[in-house]
Amino acid sequence: MPIDPNAIGATGEPAERSWDSKDCLLYALGVGAGVDELRFTTEKDQQVLPTFAVIIGGGGVPFSKIGSFNPAMLVHGEQAIEVYAPIPVEGTIRSTGRIPAIWDKGKGAVVVMESEAVNAATNEPLFKSTMTAFIRGEGGFGGERGPSASQSGPPDRKPDHEITYATREDQALIYRLSGDRNPLHSDPEFAKMAGFDRPILHGLCTYGFTGRALLHALCDGDIARFRSMSVRFSKPVLPGDSLTVSMWVDGDGAEFQTRTQDGEVVIDQGRFGFA
Amino acid sequence: MPIDPNAIGATGEPAERSWDSKDCLLYALGVGAGVDELRFTTEKDQQVLPTFAVIIGGGGVPFSKIGSFNPAMLVHGEQAIEVYAPIPVEGTIRSTGRIPAIWDKGKGAVVVMESEAVNAATNEPLFKSTMTAFIRGEGGFGGERGPSASQSGPPDRKPDHEITYATREDQALIYRLSGDRNPLHSDPEFAKMAGFDRPILHGLCTYGFTGRALLHALCDGDIARFRSMSVRFSKPVLPGDSLTVSMWVDGDGAEFQTRTQDGEVVIDQGRFGFA
Repeated sequence: MPIDPNAIGATGEPAERSWDSKDCLLYALGVGAGVDELRFTTEKDQQVLPTFAVIIGGGGVPFSKIGSFNPAMLVHGEQAIEVYAPIPVEGTIRSTGRIPAIWDKGKGAVVVMESEAVNAATNEPLFKSTMTAFIRGEGGFGGERGPSASQSGPPDRKPDHEITYATREDQALIYRLSGDRNPLHSDPEFAKMAGFDRPILHGLCTYGFTGRALLHALCDGDIARFRSMSVRFSKPVLPGDSLTVSMWVDGDGAEFQTRTQDGEVVIDQGRFGFA
Repeated sequence: MPIDPNAIGATGEPAERSWDSKDCLLYALGVGAGVDELRFTTEKDQQVLPTFAVIIGGGGVPFSKIGSFNPAMLVHGEQAIEVYAPIPVEGTIRSTGRIPAIWDKGKGAVVVMESEAVNAATNEPLFKSTMTAFIRGEGGFGGERGPSASQSGPPDRKPDHEITYATREDQALIYRLSGDRNPLHSDPEFAKMAGFDRPILHGLCTYGFTGRALLHALCDGDIARFRSMSVRFSKPVLPGDSLTVSMWVDGDGAEFQTRTQDGEVVIDQGRFGFA
């Protein structure tokens, strides 16, 4: 069975997921936080990076209804989170997922997966995670084409803020211990088969580095001011690349873009909301 | 109650400890293994660094019989392991511990703690871990002085092998996720109170880096050839220091020493046994 457009609107069974302090520390190290961000990297007055939502979130989506496809053909296209409250250092969430849209792009299918998480202990809404997957080779199933990707670039002026972080050669090795063990990010042979010279960094690792830059530049490091962050992944990042996040502030948020040392745009269409 | 010399010879109740693949990967990253050592840092054909014994080992020692003392005064003086078989990627050990010696050094007490680990599933002996703790201010309890530390340095010739590894500014932050959360290694204020300019690296992290150097230089990376490794910790290491391990091979093993970039000897009296 190929992609099934009848999956549009489908909801899944609520799913629970628990995490603890160590999971949060490991994630923070995985996205490059270090000795300058001890409240994220040690348990002393510990806080949780808002982008940790992508690690524990996304549950409850009815994947099986999407149809069958080769998971190796799935590319993480876009990722958004909306954060309603700081994520506790440990806890359990209950996630409810749905598939708001599936688009037929001819060369491939675009599947949007949305998941709302509440604190299972209190029913307090915590965050929403929205992932858009591009599945190569799975277009032509007779679905609608959907909206075109925006072609607009960032504002035509100097960014208001810029932060550069180095990633490390072994960045993917530590990041992957937060859960995504896809060998594309660790196994040189597998990466070659997938058409890369060497293993690439997880898109969500780049997302985490970018989220740290936004948090520090625009929220003064205050997690309570971090509200929403959406991106499009435009190019792969190699472990060892440096990442420069450029931010253009406007009324109620900021646009942003992430580039490598070579000027390659690896995250575009970035939109950040903060208080 | 101060140090109680009657604890000499005391044995503890056997203690079980389990670990899994992720624990081993996290440890390997914590002691500096990276993309050049994927069999230690990813689950593909995964192997376990022999020095992981210090993480899971040491159980079953009857600590409470040693007497009461301020744990902040305890310094890890020496560490030895004897490895009888490769450590499985996951499993459970049963450790039996004893206190073979307590020495009264006047300025402090030296307590030797020994622990033998067997694979709980098979009863196969896996390793022995011996830790020597120096407890400052706890001497004068009327015990024997014990042997003097050897004053002999390494052989008076050029080392046969030398390997240098860099540690990172955040090395202790990842290493400590393997279990030792002493704030001396992460909290700048705590480190200052203990008399250090900033947090110091775990001695056992330096031990792990040194063990990797010995494994690669003398065993061609083959964990089955790694038999025993004993050290004395002579100076603290700061995260970010580089570590040079110098090795002098003799008949049935090697002597070794670890120095920082400043030439400070941080591990001396090193003795390595290999097949």
